[in-house]
Amino acid sequence: MSAPNTKQIRLDEAEMQKAFEVIGDVQNEIDRLNEQASEEILQVEQKYNKLRQPNYKKRSDLISKIPSFWISVFLNHPQLSSCLDQNDENILQYLKRVDVEEHDDIKSGYRIKFTFDTNPYFDNDVIVKEFSVTESSETTCKSTAIRWKNEAKNGQSTSSSSKKSDGETRKRSHDTENNNNDHGAFMSWFTDTNGEGSNDEFGEVIKDDIFVNPLQYYLAATTNDEEEGSGGENDEEDDLEEKEDEQE
Amino acid sequence: MSAPNTKQIRLDEAEMQKAFEVIGDVQNEIDRLNEQASEEILQVEQKYNKLRQPNYKKRSDLISKIPSFWISVFLNHPQLSSCLDQNDENILQYLKRVDVEEHDDIKSGYRIKFTFDTNPYFDNDVIVKEFSVTESSETTCKSTAIRWKNEAKNGQSTSSSSKKSDGETRKRSHDTENNNNDHGAFMSWFTDTNGEGSNDEFGEVIKDDIFVNPLQYYLAATTNDEEEGSGGENDEEDDLEEKEDEQE
Ligand SMILES: [Ca+2]
Ligand SMILES: [Ca+2]
Ligand SMILES: [Mg+2]
Ligand SMILES: [Mg+2]
Repeated sequence: MSAPNTKQIRLDEAEMQKAFEVIGDVQNEIDRLNEQASEEILQVEQKYNKLRQPNYKKRSDLISKIPSFWISVFLNHPQLSSCLDQNDENILQYLKRVDVEEHDDIKSGYRIKFTFDTNPYFDNDVIVKEFSVTESSETTCKSTAIRWKNEAKNGQSTSSSSKKSDGETRKRSHDTENNNNDHGAFMSWFTDTNGEGSNDEFGEVIKDDIFVNPLQYYLAATTNDEEEGSGGENDEEDDLEEKEDEQE
Repeated sequence: MSAPNTKQIRLDEAEMQKAFEVIGDVQNEIDRLNEQASEEILQVEQKYNKLRQPNYKKRSDLISKIPSFWISVFLNHPQLSSCLDQNDENILQYLKRVDVEEHDDIKSGYRIKFTFDTNPYFDNDVIVKEFSVTESSETTCKSTAIRWKNEAKNGQSTSSSSKKSDGETRKRSHDTENNNNDHGAFMSWFTDTNGEGSNDEFGEVIKDDIFVNPLQYYLAATTNDEEEGSGGENDEEDDLEEKEDEQE
């Protein structure tokens, strides 16, 4: 045992009691300031969320007119591209809008709206994946039930099915009704609200990375030919064929 | 290959060019709003940092009068307690103030000031561990050179030396000069500015957890007897002996 601390100012019992009381009071004041700071920061975030809204809307409107914008972004994204299989790609060709909406209080979650053109795979125009944080800080999620077209619900069948394990695809969402367990990793993530899909890794990549600046990912692999190439008549078909060639 | 997207509105080359230009403009506006939001949030944080300062000062003054406050906090903390060995404990009995100061711009780092009573181990009153984030987002750290008292620089030698591996203790700070590699994990962390100690895990625990509310950790293991016990004449010595008994 080391020597007792000889320089410590000794307090008597009453002084000690008083000291703890005042430490408690000061701590309460610090706690109050911390809460007030969090509240003000939240207000700043909400204010800028509102200011960004019309810009997001305008950007989304414009992007929806660029052929194959979102599939290109996803395929150019280092994390997402490796997750997509051919079934995903077939479906995501028809994805024309991606809109991320934070809940009004920001802290409690966000939703991602995927808007599709008419397509041979499902009847929905808009499918929504929503993450909510509960009072007890748990993240839950739900997603729009997909109304698959029976004749072609899984995209064109390709050799890419080897990319996913049965274990992954068998985790089924409780709110989709069809037995469509052949779709790719992205659509599995979308429909799955219990297992893997309820972790929001894909969601966070979209919200915190892609949505912040999707154009950079679109341009990432097309900078060489975007100047003269992006307006040609059959340009988007050409691009897609090139991508398929690269993958084969 | 899936069917081309028949509902896509086709843009001619000039329209496409224009669309990308406007997307770029909108993106610039979004980027500008993001920067402005970060700036405002930083200002809020700085404002509250200032408001908390006098409370931290007052709390620190009061805490310095409570015998064995900081060693009790550290020993009651789930992460820190398991890292402290007997050499640390001997030295930390003399720790009377812990003050965390964020750099003015908050983003670029923080320093932790440890103030000691006169003690048999080193001559410094105040030793400072400082973490700085460089422009290129690297974290560097430096620490006050400890002026060990040669006769007792490592605390009283105990069987606790078995608690640390040679590998850990051999990582030496370049700015301490004595060959004092027998001190515990905490003092090793403090003095080491190259290896393990330059990761700021201990620092972040102190800054983001302990310093937010140290009283809760002090009270964690003493709630049973704090009411009548904390003011007694030889009370702190009794407490320490109890702690040592528990560890043997
Ligand atoms: Ca194109
Ligand atoms: Ca005591
Ligand atoms: Mg969009
Ligand atoms: Mg203090």
